[in-house]
Amino acid sequence: MSDVLKTLADLLEQRKQNADPESSYVASLHHKGLNKILEKVGEEANEAIIAAKDAEHSGDNKDVIYETADLWFHSLVMLSHLGEDSDAVLDELARRFGLSGIDEKASRNK
Amino acid sequence: MSDVLKTLADLLEQRKQNADPESSYVASLHHKGLNKILEKVGEEANEAIIAAKDAEHSGDNKDVIYETADLWFHSLVMLSHLGEDSDAVLDELARRFGLSGIDEKASRNK
Amino acid sequence: MSDVLKTLADLLEQRKQNADPESSYVASLHHKGLNKILEKVGEEANEAIIAAKDAEHSGDNKDVIYETADLWFHSLVMLSHLGEDSDAVLDELARRFGLSGIDEKASRNK
Amino acid sequence: MSDVLKTLADLLEQRKQNADPESSYVASLHHKGLNKILEKVGEEANEAIIAAKDAEHSGDNKDVIYETADLWFHSLVMLSHLGEDSDAVLDELARRFGLSGIDEKASRNK
Repeated sequence: MSDVLKTLADLLEQRKQNADPESSYVASLHHKGLNKILEKVGEEANEAIIAAKDAEHSGDNKDVIYETADLWFHSLVMLSHLGEDSDAVLDELARRFGLSGIDEKASRNK
Repeated sequence: MSDVLKTLADLLEQRKQNADPESSYVASLHHKGLNKILEKVGEEANEAIIAAKDAEHSGDNKDVIYETADLWFHSLVMLSHLGEDSDAVLDELARRFGLSGIDEKASRNK
Repeated sequence: MSDVLKTLADLLEQRKQNADPESSYVASLHHKGLNKILEKVGEEANEAIIAAKDAEHSGDNKDVIYETADLWFHSLVMLSHLGEDSDAVLDELARRFGLSGIDEKASRNK
Repeated sequence: MSDVLKTLADLLEQRKQNADPESSYVASLHHKGLNKILEKVGEEANEAIIAAKDAEHSGDNKDVIYETADLWFHSLVMLSHLGEDSDAVLDELARRFGLSGIDEKASRNK
């Protein structure tokens, strides 16, 4: 699973550069501009929150997983629009939690 | 970088199970309950959006990366609170973009 | 201007009770249910925030006024769906700011 | 009730102009700037949405009324920061729903 974000980031980059706004959802978001992308980020965050409240009562996590995927996806498009990718965010998370050491050690043990 | 999310998910799970709400921020969030966690998800999404609008004008992406890390972190706490982790979200993203094949092939070539 | 919210609340109540979901936007929101209404509240809050960031740079407040009207409108639909109206919110605001006295006095001077 | 928004708008304007950021919450928000005000708008929208989901199950609307008051209040501070007030939003709502005629007629019948 570990390379999904990286592979997805590469795919997003390709579609940003080359794709036709008529046929690619990602290219159409970039074409519409940052505001449209940020509207989607806010919309998906809100839908994830509503789905989590429903999961609290139903015990069914399917929708919250689906909406969180939508949220992460659109935040990746936002980063891509600004010239960044998921590595910058993962670096920041690793730095905060002192995970780079753990990660390095895990790699050495493979 | 690729194992950061998995390592972070394991860390979040540990802190959910064992940590003292007085000393661990993650444990204190679980102790306060789902609504508090969802307030943080919404807050960080909003701060990422505001930071992206500022980045549009300043060209400085530091804050948007920082706030997106906050957003992903708190959405991982939300998933953990509901008994899920990042794998469920990454699986969903892989499924949508047909990345499982790519990922599998990449693994085989290692 | 002062009776706009009250008149609007009455209109929303009528459309909730009697209108055809095919022809009335308000009736269609109630028909789709609370989650759909809350998605719109979140969406319009987010669009108001993005419009305010644009107004900061452009000096043009047209969009932020438009999006705030959308936000207030959809929060009125939310209240109506739960059996409340704008009076409950205005009472709460009056109570907080000690405005009931001022309001009462203003009425007496009419 | 009808003059609460107008009285509140006047109060917000006074506190924006004259008040001490140390002693007035409104003055402190203006002092911290637009981003802080927009963070509050987003936060309160999100809390209203979470409260509405709880009201759906509990039947108790107290929190959703309280959070909607917070949302309207902070959106009034946002408008005030940008040099607008509630009249601009009420005008827009009246225009959309053709309420100016109704409102005028209601006034005539008083």
